[in-house]
Formats: sequence, C-alpha cells, structure tokens
Amino acid sequence: MIIHLANTVDDQKAKAIAADCKAIYYKKADKHVLITASSVKELPNGIEEFVTEFFPMKNDMQLASREYRKETREVRIGNTVIGGSTGKTVLIGGPCSVESEEQIESSSELLKELNLGTLRGGCYKPRTSPYSFQGLGLEGLKLLAKMREKHGLNVITEVRDASHIQEVIEYSDVIQVGAKAMYDQGILRACAKTQKPVLIKRGFGSTLQEFAQAAEFVLSGGNENVIFCERGIRTFETGTRFTLDLCGVAWLKEYCNLPIVLDPSHAMGYAYGIADLTRACTAMGIDGLIIEVHPNPKIAKSDAAQQLNHDEFRNLVKTLNPIAQAIGMKIV
Amino acid sequence: MIIHLANTVDDQKAKAIAADCKAIYYKKADKHVLITASSVKELPNGIEEFVTEFFPMKNDMQLASREYRKETREVRIGNTVIGGSTGKTVLIGGPCSVESEEQIESSSELLKELNLGTLRGGCYKPRTSPYSFQGLGLEGLKLLAKMREKHGLNVITEVRDASHIQEVIEYSDVIQVGAKAMYDQGILRACAKTQKPVLIKRGFGSTLQEFAQAAEFVLSGGNENVIFCERGIRTFETGTRFTLDLCGVAWLKEYCNLPIVLDPSHAMGYAYGIADLTRACTAMGIDGLIIEVHPNPKIAKSDAAQQLNHDEFRNLVKTLNPIAQAIGMKIV
Amino acid sequence: MIIHLANTVDDQKAKAIAADCKAIYYKKADKHVLITASSVKELPNGIEEFVTEFFPMKNDMQLASREYRKETREVRIGNTVIGGSTGKTVLIGGPCSVESEEQIESSSELLKELNLGTLRGGCYKPRTSPYSFQGLGLEGLKLLAKMREKHGLNVITEVRDASHIQEVIEYSDVIQVGAKAMYDQGILRACAKTQKPVLIKRGFGSTLQEFAQAAEFVLSGGNENVIFCERGIRTFETGTRFTLDLCGVAWLKEYCNLPIVLDPSHAMGYAYGIADLTRACTAMGIDGLIIEVHPNPKIAKSDAAQQLNHDEFRNLVKTLNPIAQAIGMKIV
Amino acid sequence: MIIHLANTVDDQKAKAIAADCKAIYYKKADKHVLITASSVKELPNGIEEFVTEFFPMKNDMQLASREYRKETREVRIGNTVIGGSTGKTVLIGGPCSVESEEQIESSSELLKELNLGTLRGGCYKPRTSPYSFQGLGLEGLKLLAKMREKHGLNVITEVRDASHIQEVIEYSDVIQVGAKAMYDQGILRACAKTQKPVLIKRGFGSTLQEFAQAAEFVLSGGNENVIFCERGIRTFETGTRFTLDLCGVAWLKEYCNLPIVLDPSHAMGYAYGIADLTRACTAMGIDGLIIEVHPNPKIAKSDAAQQLNHDEFRNLVKTLNPIAQAIGMKIV
Repeated sequence: MIIHLANTVDDQKAKAIAADCKAIYYKKADKHVLITASSVKELPNGIEEFVTEFFPMKNDMQLASREYRKETREVRIGNTVIGGSTGKTVLIGGPCSVESEEQIESSSELLKELNLGTLRGGCYKPRTSPYSFQGLGLEGLKLLAKMREKHGLNVITEVRDASHIQEVIEYSDVIQVGAKAMYDQGILRACAKTQKPVLIKRGFGSTLQEFAQAAEFVLSGGNENVIFCERGIRTFETGTRFTLDLCGVAWLKEYCNLPIVLDPSHAMGYAYGIADLTRACTAMGIDGLIIEVHPNPKIAKSDAAQQLNHDEFRNLVKTLNPIAQAIGMKIV
Repeated sequence: MIIHLANTVDDQKAKAIAADCKAIYYKKADKHVLITASSVKELPNGIEEFVTEFFPMKNDMQLASREYRKETREVRIGNTVIGGSTGKTVLIGGPCSVESEEQIESSSELLKELNLGTLRGGCYKPRTSPYSFQGLGLEGLKLLAKMREKHGLNVITEVRDASHIQEVIEYSDVIQVGAKAMYDQGILRACAKTQKPVLIKRGFGSTLQEFAQAAEFVLSGGNENVIFCERGIRTFETGTRFTLDLCGVAWLKEYCNLPIVLDPSHAMGYAYGIADLTRACTAMGIDGLIIEVHPNPKIAKSDAAQQLNHDEFRNLVKTLNPIAQAIGMKIV
Repeated sequence: MIIHLANTVDDQKAKAIAADCKAIYYKKADKHVLITASSVKELPNGIEEFVTEFFPMKNDMQLASREYRKETREVRIGNTVIGGSTGKTVLIGGPCSVESEEQIESSSELLKELNLGTLRGGCYKPRTSPYSFQGLGLEGLKLLAKMREKHGLNVITEVRDASHIQEVIEYSDVIQVGAKAMYDQGILRACAKTQKPVLIKRGFGSTLQEFAQAAEFVLSGGNENVIFCERGIRTFETGTRFTLDLCGVAWLKEYCNLPIVLDPSHAMGYAYGIADLTRACTAMGIDGLIIEVHPNPKIAKSDAAQQLNHDEFRNLVKTLNPIAQAIGMKIV
Repeated sequence: MIIHLANTVDDQKAKAIAADCKAIYYKKADKHVLITASSVKELPNGIEEFVTEFFPMKNDMQLASREYRKETREVRIGNTVIGGSTGKTVLIGGPCSVESEEQIESSSELLKELNLGTLRGGCYKPRTSPYSFQGLGLEGLKLLAKMREKHGLNVITEVRDASHIQEVIEYSDVIQVGAKAMYDQGILRACAKTQKPVLIKRGFGSTLQEFAQAAEFVLSGGNENVIFCERGIRTFETGTRFTLDLCGVAWLKEYCNLPIVLDPSHAMGYAYGIADLTRACTAMGIDGLIIEVHPNPKIAKSDAAQQLNHDEFRNLVKTLNPIAQAIGMKIV
C-alpha cells in the first residue's frame, strides 16, 4: 500500500509512522510517501488524520503502477522531456562502445545533422568473456562529456556493476542499468539516491513483473525519474539474437506509469532487420528508441553485426517521421 | 539442391532422373522440378544436357528460400493477390469460432462496411481440453460458404487434423494449418495435392527453420501457394498469452520468398494490446494481418479475452491506413 | 466434474443424464462415467439417486488427476504391467527408426540378452524436412510384428498423423503419440476407441497442464490405458538438443495418476550424456525408460548422434540395477 | 590460447610477453599463465624458448575447459575437498535466509547429527521486490561465523552485489555468486583476487557457454578455486518454479573441468519434489548438492514453499547414501 501523509506532518512524525508500518519512506515537497508491503490492504489504525491519500495494491508493482498514477510520468533529460503526453519519441543513437574521440565525434555530428539530441555509447561493457574488449572506462566517460559540451547533446551510458556507479552518475545525463544488471541492488539503490534519470533495461530472462519491481527499488528510494527499456528476451529461437517482446510492451503500457524506450538493435542482433523493427516500434507510439550506429560497423570492437552505418541510419530516420506523424507523434 | 529440367524432357525421363537422384519431383507447365537432399552440392553426372537451371542449397529450406527465388511469391486468394510487390496488406477479420449464422453474418457485414474482403472463422477448434467447445464442424464450413456466396468474401478456416482435411479443402478458399498442426504431415501432404492457398501458422514451440521446412512439405508436393503466418511463440513470459516474434518476421523477410501474415490476436491474448500491436505489424510492411473480432466478445465460445468488438475493430482499421500509406502500402 | 452412475442405471437413462449435463460419457463394467466441464462444481439437480460417487475438479485435468484416483494406474502391456505399485521400471530399447530386418533383429537379440521385454522402433518418422528419411511405413510395422512373434517382445511404435493411425493400432502393442502430434485430436480420438495402451509424449513446447489434458482426450473416450512420456522441452539452451524436465516429472507424480516413462535420448540428443541422465531418471523411481540403441549409430538414418551402440547400452543397463535396487525398484 | 611460460622466466619478462600478446596474465608457483583471445590459434613469434606448454582454444571457455585440463579440478573447502576424483558428494544444507541465532543454531545441529559439514544461509537476499525481507546483512554473516566456530562447519553465503563483497569474502568459507549476479564483473573480479572458493550459480536465463565464461573471469584473475552450481533455468513451464537442467549438467561434465554442485530446491520451488530430484542428482555422480532446510518452513521469511523441514531432510539423507553407493560415491 502506498500512503501519502500531508506535508504539514513533520518529518520526525512521518518517519515514526513509517517505522510503525514497516514502510519504506521518502519525502517530496508536497507530501511524505510511505510504501508498505503490498499484502497490507487496509490503512493501519490511528493514522487516518495524517493521511491525504492511500492506494491499496495488488502486488509489489506499486509506485510504477497505473493504479497509483494514471498518467505516464514525464522524465526530464537535459532540455528534453521523455514520456507524459508530449507526443515525442526520443531517438537515441550512437555506437555500442565509445572507441575513440574520432569515432564518437563522428557519431555526434551525425545526430546533429539529423536534429537528434541524445547520444549513447558504452564505456564499461558487460561482456560475457574476459577476453573481449571491455570498454574505455573513465576515458570513455570523459569523451562523452566532451561531446555534451561541444554539441549540446544529452549523453547516456551504461553502468556495468556497482564498483563504478559513482563515476557514471557524475558524467552521464541518463544512467543506463543494463539488462545483465537489472537485479543489481547495489546499482539500483545508488541510483535511488540521485535525481538523475535512470533507464533500466529488462533482463533478457526477466518477467515483466520482475522488471517493474526493479524500477521499484529506484522509485521507492525517492528518485522518480525512471524509464523502462525493452531490448529483447531470450527464447528458444536463435536465428535472431533475442526476441523483441512487443506484447510485453503492450502490457507495460497497460499496467505501468513509466515512459518506455525500445532497443531493436540488441533484440535483433543483425543490421538487416533493424529498420523494419524500428518502424514497428515507432508505430506503437512509444516514448523512445535506442539504435546503434557506427561510422564503420565492420571494425566495431563490440556488436559489429547489429550496428547500422551512417547511411543506413539516415535512411531509417527519414522513414520514421511519416509513421510517427500517422499516429500523432514526432521523432526528436 | 533444386534442379529444373527443360519442359522438352518427357515425363517418364524426368521421373527416371528424379529417381536416380533420390529427388522429390513435381511438374510445372514450363519445367520439371527436382529437389534432392540439401547435402547434394554438385549436379549429378550425366544429366547436364536436360538441366536448364540448378540451385545448390545450404540447408533443407529450399523452395521457400530467397536463394531459389529472389522475389516474394504472389498467392492468389479469390480475386485478390497476397504477397509479391502488390503493395497491399490483406486484413483478414472474423471471429475465433463460427458460432451461429447470425454471428457470422454480423461479422461479414462488418467486413463489407470496411471494404475488407477476407473472412476468418474456426469450425474445427484445436482446443487443449476435450471438455471445451470444439467447434461446429461441417455445419460451420457451410455457414462460411454461405457468406462467401452472399457477400463475395473469401473465407479462411483451420484444419485441426488429417481426419477432416478433405472437407476443409472443399469449402475454404484458404486452408489454414494451425500452430498445433504445423508438423502434421498428414495435413501438409494433403495440402500439397491441391492448388488452393495454404496458410501455415508457426508452431508456438517451432524454430524459424522448422517453420520454413513445414512449408517445404507443401511446396515440394507441387502446390506453390503457401503463406507463412507468425502468431506468437511460447516464452517464459506469461503476462501475455504468447510473444509475437517480429525479429523472426524480419528473419523470414530476409531469407524466405513466401508472403507473411501476422496474427497479433493470438500472440497477445488480450484485447487491450491488439490495436498497438497491429499498428506495429502494419509498419513492418507485411503482406497480411489476421485480427479476431466478435459481435459480443464477452459471450464468445472461445478466445473471449482477445477478440475485439465491432467498434474497437472499426477504430483500429481507421488508424491503419495512414500508417500503411506512410510506408507505401494499402490495407485491403 | 466426474460423476459415476450405478451400473444398475440402464444405458439409455445414463446417456440421457449425460446429455442433460453436457457431459462426455463412457461405460465401464461396474459404472457409467460422466465428465462435465470442470466449471461445474455442484452435482446437477435431480440425479442424486443414480449417482454413486462424484468428484468436483479444479480444472480440465480430471480423469488423469490424483483427486479422482489416488493411486497410479496400472497399464498392461502384453504380459507386463507398467505403473501401479509393481516396483518395476520398464526399460524400452531399440533404434530410432526401423531400417532393415537385419538391424531390428540385432536390436531384438540385444534386448533378449539383457532380459528386457519391450522393443521400440519408428516406422513413420515425423521429420522436420521432407528431404530426410521418412521411415519404412507399413513394411516397418511388419518387421516389428515379426520380432514380437519370433522373440516374444512387446513392440511400440509412433503414429505420425491421423492418416495411418489404424495400421499402427493394428500392428503395435503400444501406440506412441509423438511429441509433434500431442495436440492431434484425430489421433487422440482414434486412440480413445481402442483398448490398446497409448503412450503420449509431451510436446516440446507444451505445458504440463496441456500435456495432462491431451491424456483426457483418450481417457474420456473410454480408453484408460494411457502412459505419459517426458522427452525434453525446448528452451533457450541449445548446447543440448532439448532440456529434460525432471521438475515437471515431479509435478506429474504429485498431481497425476498415470504411469510415467522418461526418454533421455531425445532430450539430450548426444550419446555422451545418456548414461548419466538415465541413471538420474532411474533414481526418481519412474515407471519406464526409453533409450535409443543402434547396432551402428554412425550409419543410422535418423538421430545418429544420440543413439548408443550395443556395448554402451549393455554397460548402462549394468549400472541401472543397483540404483533401482537402492530405491526398491527393479529394471525389466 | 593459454600459454605457460617456464617459472625460470622472470616476472618482468613474463608480463612484457603478456602485454605483447594482449594476454591476461597471472602467476602460479610453477609457471606463468597467459591467456589471449581464443581467436589466436598459433603461438606468437619469438616466444617459443620461454614456453613450456600451450593450448589453442575453440572459444572463450578456456581455463575451465577439458581441453586445458582433462581432470576435474579439486577445490578445498576448509578440511574437505570438492571435485577431483574424491568420490564424494558434498551435501550443503541450511535455510534460505539466516533469520536468527536460534534458527541457524538449529540448522547447524541438524547437520552435525547427520555428519554433514557444510552450512548455507543467505544474509544479503537478492529479492525481486524492495518490499520483501532483504536479509540480516552483516549480522547474519556474524551468526554464520559463530556456527563455524562452535560446530566446526564450513559456511557458504551469497554475495548480492559488489557493494558488500569484501564482507562476504571475510566471513564466508565459500563465496556464492548468485544466479542474478552471474554476469556481475564487480563481484567476479573481486573474487578473482582472493583464493577463497567461489561457487557460481548459473543465471536462470544464461546459456551454458556464458556460464562457463563467467568462471573465466575468476579463473583468469588467478583464483583457481571455482565451482559451478546449476539451480534451474527459466522456461515456459510455470507449474514448477524453474527447470533443473540436467542435460546441461551432462554438457558441463563433458566439456568443463570444474566441480559441479546442484541445487534442486531453487529449481523445483516446492518441497514435494525435492526428494525425488535430489535422488536423481545424486545418481548423476555430481560433486555436491545444496538443499534448503528450515526448522519451520511455514514461517520462513523467504522461499517458504521450497524448504524441507528437519524430518523431511533426515528422511531424504537416509535415502541418498544407498544411491551414492550404487555408483561408487559417498555423501559427506
């Protein structure tokens, strides 16, 4: 159950009530927020006078649920807003990994040419083998920061594990929690303590319910700026790298109040299918897209097969606007 | 390997060559077609003089492959054509099951109102329980035939098992091989002996390669009118009924030469997600769609949760045309 | 709900009651059996006087459930009994496909040498490609019958689709419904009309609930001689051919009253793991095992990788008896 | 490729060679070990004179592969050895979570009574909801340490994320990397810097190849004491919590050189199936077992459904010894 206490209640009192209810507590300007286990279905005795609103919940998807908030949340990323009823689909582009200044500069210029405002690039790569390229680390973060400064782009990069979370929070405009780290409470709890936007990718073996509950770790710590990202789940089909779960996206839209970004690049794993899938995602009216693009995919140090080259990316973007328009949206 | 012999070769000779090569054989007006195991990589000795063309193959997806035919095949359904470069997405609508004349008449009128030409309705239902409604059988087939006559609609219905295949071939314009029957050689081989179009649904536990090979059973029997239908695969996610595999659709478009129809209704399993998914499918530029619609879904005898009502269907169709147009297609 | 009427009720009356309840009906020597939809939770009015027992059911797994019959059913195969509390694990051996008389004779002699009594061998192979070996068909059935006569073995072979079900019923001691045919009502309903034992393999994409309900199609037609066979499900793991679901076997043992046979050969797909897996299955105390063995696996016409050779099979059997003994069972 | 340099080569030289080959480097008493990308198939020029042995590899499963080490590694846990050819199956028992001193004392006494030597108990619980019991943390670690001192038990507990890895390394005899943390390089790299045994659980959405490669992160850092644990994968079947992948275990035994522990409790998720599954695992001849047992499962703060009570555990252990004996093993 989510319980709102009036902001006239003083902090000490609010915390005491939270402790009595075994509730997680955080404070907003206009209210105190308490979240108990979802098994609590009735308002605890003796606190009615302090309560302004309360929301009994079916399960532990609480703050992320439409039952708590009917409207999709808006999350501010630099000077852009993702989600809400802005009618915008934010197209995030860039290479799988930041590899060099020349490379990331080239990607940045491509985005500027196409009037896109958000640059992606991995610095700490969650590779499955210790013998593969592991990313540039801090050096990569600094290159991204340079691009932000030079081109006015928002940058997004992934945190791989809790050991370098503070650096990513410092340098990135959006903290990406990768699919392999979705359950990592070290990361999630650290993200809860900042107000920076957090984009959580669904684990490829994770149910929608678990995905929503991962968001609860951040939301219940007081950071309301959380974005979902579906990037493909693992199924028996290995002809493609993963299986983009658009049925799951329909579920998230129905039951959750967070903005949704789709990543067809990682789902498909092969450049040939990206354009078709991106068009499909766009027609669903989602809040954002992440597409991998590289100046020369053949020599990319990671995910070479799935990155578009610059011309493929330009051609794709050109086809997206009419589709977005057909459903009353706009690509930015 | 696929081998074409000149049509000047007489039938007896062609069959003798086929027997020598352990090849499957069928005849077309302009050629004899022989298909050997895909492990045969070189043209057998002594037959060069009869051969007009030959196609070594990587695996047992042969007649369905783009290596054999670069262009997508056209399949004629009544007075419509599906596939090829017609620029049309054929929208097939109708109830899960034919339940009564009144009901199927109502569905037919809805299609006519919306200028749609193809009616679906199950007569032999492949239920997982013997204690559920099993369909009207032959009576249902006759009702579909009546609709065809009265409204000029093409009708499509499912064959559940080999025991009633002849009846379905007789009454239906398109023979639907259901997901649970995809491996059924009794059905597939019977379909190979007619020239009626065959729509094969992908088994929900079947790989793309197996799906393509199911089509080979029909194609290699001489019936070239085969259509793929993706309708969702079974994954660990149970929040939705199945998972529509659009990555797999991208794979099929890349590697296969058959028209592709998508069935978001069975994938999603819940009416709330159908409109969004159908828009996504449309933006992929596929050849057809199957959507379940019922005059009163609440009292439907099967798949009640996933069928749209008439108003939901009307509203959906209205939103599809602008998307189709945006990618140069047209809904029919 | 399952309802037993006294055998003093005459057939016409019993059928009339069944019709009133929309129940499936069959007759046994000592009772009439009616099965309604599981949604019926209370005994229909006005029939109490004829009813000897009734069993409200949670879902459409009815006749196969432990709620209906607490004890595991016994199924007679020739002069052996499988299931019940016989303390026996029936080890069924033989090649994937019957390929020649010499080959199947060799397999038969191996079984006799090891005091095993049940021979398997496929005649109608449910291949995923039309360009692979499809089985010897009727010729194979006759070879199996010859082995039965000559060596006193029970034989089991698979029906691939409804088009040849009558031949299999005629020649085989146990009718095997293969994994790809588990939903085939043409087969299941034909099996319901004989009294021969039916071994149903779980579809590799089928839930346990669906598996149990497939058995209901046979049981509710009056054939009580049904055996489950788990042979591996399809998962994201492709290092092995399928994934043997022993958790699912524990579920079947808990909730169902049918004997259970395990097939590690098809699950694993590689000879190297078969011995270990068979020992694991044996220690679970199941009712039967199916192991593929071939005089010369390298030249087998199907499933070459997973068949044991005769020495491997001998060595395996030798290790099974002590394990069986340790849990109070015996291999036969 | 794995390259051994003679221990007569000085450290500086060895490191220089490693840098030239872009190899990961660690030192053992008798050799220097270099591991390059597996794409390196030939020994780099000019280093032959320093090389004692080298092993070209098929893929990035290198140090864990049977191609590198034919025999299963032995890992010392306190005064016990797991793996190798010891003929022992180490049975690890204890509650899901350490909840109180009374509770963990009771578990410890049970183990002592049954002559078992290794106690498990979670302190940092990787729950999917922030509103569930999260474990006692450091307090739990101290209780485990107390049990080690008092009863001479080895203790094993899970690290949830990189933020508390040092505490777990300090207090636990075996560091358990949980299924949800399998890809966590912050944890894996920290584990590589200690010599304590590390038990890595397979992610429930992870392939066998990825599982083996997770071990490479620890092994290639110089900690050779790594143990695999299979605990069930996520499949479409939800009748049980997960699906224990014994086919995968056969694969690991064939291709990998690390000891294997099985966890039927988490795979099954329900107490009723644990005994049967544990017997199956035992008959496979694996190196260890983890079974959850609680003085009173009904009031357990996590995983209540799957924990055995003390009597069930006693009865189970009694049945394991004869099976182990039948295959030449012993439960310790």
